Amino acid sequence: MKDPNSSAGILTIDMVELARNWQRLKSSLNNADCGAVIKAEAYGLGAGRAIIQLCQAGCKEFFVALIDEGVYLRKVLSDVSLEANIHILGGPMFAGQALEEHNLIPVLNSLEDLALWKRKHPQAPADIHVDTGMARLGLSPSDVVILQKEPQRIKGLNIAYVISHLACSEDSKTTMNADQLKSFRQALTLFPGCKASLANSSGIFLGDKYFFNLARPGAALYGINPTPGKPNPMSQVIKLQGKILQVREVNVPQTVGYGATHQIKEKGRIATVGVGYADGYPRSLSNKGFGFLGGVRVPIVGRVSMDLTTFDVSNVPKQLAHPGALIDLIGPIIPVDDVADAAGTIGYEILTSLGHRYQRIYKTSN
Amino acid sequence: MKDPNSSAGILTIDMVELARNWQRLKSSLNNADCGAVIKAEAYGLGAGRAIIQLCQAGCKEFFVALIDEGVYLRKVLSDVSLEANIHILGGPMFAGQALEEHNLIPVLNSLEDLALWKRKHPQAPADIHVDTGMARLGLSPSDVVILQKEPQRIKGLNIAYVISHLACSEDSKTTMNADQLKSFRQALTLFPGCKASLANSSGIFLGDKYFFNLARPGAALYGINPTPGKPNPMSQVIKLQGKILQVREVNVPQTVGYGATHQIKEKGRIATVGVGYADGYPRSLSNKGFGFLGGVRVPIVGRVSMDLTTFDVSNVPKQLAHPGALIDLIGPIIPVDDVADAAGTIGYEILTSLGHRYQRIYKTSN
Repeated sequence: MKDPNSSAGILTIDMVELARNWQRLKSSLNNADCGAVIKAEAYGLGAGRAIIQLCQAGCKEFFVALIDEGVYLRKVLSDVSLEANIHILGGPMFAGQALEEHNLIPVLNSLEDLALWKRKHPQAPADIHVDTGMARLGLSPSDVVILQKEPQRIKGLNIAYVISHLACSEDSKTTMNADQLKSFRQALTLFPGCKASLANSSGIFLGDKYFFNLARPGAALYGINPTPGKPNPMSQVIKLQGKILQVREVNVPQTVGYGATHQIKEKGRIATVGVGYADGYPRSLSNKGFGFLGGVRVPIVGRVSMDLTTFDVSNVPKQLAHPGALIDLIGPIIPVDDVADAAGTIGYEILTSLGHRYQRIYKTSN
Repeated sequence: MKDPNSSAGILTIDMVELARNWQRLKSSLNNADCGAVIKAEAYGLGAGRAIIQLCQAGCKEFFVALIDEGVYLRKVLSDVSLEANIHILGGPMFAGQALEEHNLIPVLNSLEDLALWKRKHPQAPADIHVDTGMARLGLSPSDVVILQKEPQRIKGLNIAYVISHLACSEDSKTTMNADQLKSFRQALTLFPGCKASLANSSGIFLGDKYFFNLARPGAALYGINPTPGKPNPMSQVIKLQGKILQVREVNVPQTVGYGATHQIKEKGRIATVGVGYADGYPRSLSNKGFGFLGGVRVPIVGRVSMDLTTFDVSNVPKQLAHPGALIDLIGPIIPVDDVADAAGTIGYEILTSLGHRYQRIYKTSN
């Protein structure tokens, strides 16, 4: 529906690099399997495309947050005659018949979930989530004590994986990881012979103790650095470019944008790009973020507004800064983590906020 | 497609209050007309629904940012046999034939735009945007000087409105507003007999000098306070509720969420809600935002994560804080401006970030 000529932003998503990132993680996991977390539209990149690409690359265990997401992705797979397991991290509550109908594997997060599943679908596979330090979802330590005393609560369940989730895996120095590993191992004694899964993206880089049977990377697949402070072992997957709508010669004295937060001090040129916070280019980048045009770093001046952002292009050769020219906003030259740093958030939020007005180009070959 | 039972977030959009907000602004404009800015999906609420509702309420001038948005909305109107003018703020560049085919009115922002339009569509209506202090889009002061010297550049054009945009209208004390008003009046002498438009939402509250022929409110329509520091004259239009997935009894000592940023000091209860930053509930609310459950203020504890947020519900009666219960996140009890304050942004960014996993309910009668 979008006319490429009239698009003010172009989002290129490199499906080859996505698959390559997955292979890279898989190859570092020894004999453990590598799943993929594709919740929230595969972190904003498009879950339908991602599940097909990764399934064809060999991935067989996919994780989403909500039942609706699982229902949609089961249909996507079935339309192209592919099969894979789809796990629902948010659990089975309020599911009606959807889990059964669409062959989805819920993560059981509480004693209530266990009881519900045992009553309704004792034969159907389910995961069990043991909380070891997030205090978000999963069986609490006191729940685990109850299970130790009352093993009939899990008897006869068809357990796919026992899982837990690391809270601080990107910080390889904290003792929290080892504490969570210890708690997880303790909990696993309740489930002899069951497969287990602990590591998220950064967890894969904490060593093979964290591998168990299955890793569940998300962020690293999409180019976020799983080893902050060290070189990023992953490839960038997205490139976001904003189109210049107008270039303006400016003279002192003048202010730019809402709230007049930027004062122009020297003669120069301002380029206005048709991408703003409604496109997920965060307002917190105002007077802080930057792009690249013709290899030159161009800082954001003034506030990012809803549909427009203004860049100082005074240092760019005049013939390169014209209406229609594209400024790189995210991509290999400005990794998503750098944009997130400038915006005061994490790459995850940058990706999941990517908007819907961009022309999206999916690159499927080199 | 979304199963209401399985939705983890419910977004109710009150179309009656939207129309009422528009009427309220219109009635304060004396004889000037009241348009509506519905770019970026009507600030995230759904532009297709909004244009029909406001058109039926009497609005005839709609403003969007991009040509794609205009093309879509022309189709929406035509499907229900409604007519209205749709203006494209981003201008006519890169349009191909879309403007003509879909009867869209471009805003001409530069001398190049003027020349393009005069060459291609001299009879078709267009707006002219004079920049008076945003330095974002629009004819610059030096462009205006050129037009004074070379009036043939605008001769014969079918001008719908001459427009400008206020940079600091929400600050009634700054001299910037009067400066922009003065520059706008000066520029208007170039366009005798043409209709003019300056005021955005907050501009309407700066007095009738700012009315001209047409006001272009956006934010106020959607419940954002156009008079910060004074009581909000507008009604709230949206209500966002998050469903509790799990409630956890906690004991000292324990941390909550990613990065272990929240330390539990007392015995209490934590409720995990299935809404996170991938749904546009910003990560910057971590350990700062709050919701309401059963009339009780429940603070966010720990980091907002992608699909989940944890609230301290220790002060809520136990029978009210259970899986399936709804915590109010935005709405009449927590206006969008208050959520934005807690997140360190503006209501506009909260609204345009509203996600796509919610069950959306459009309320069309009282």
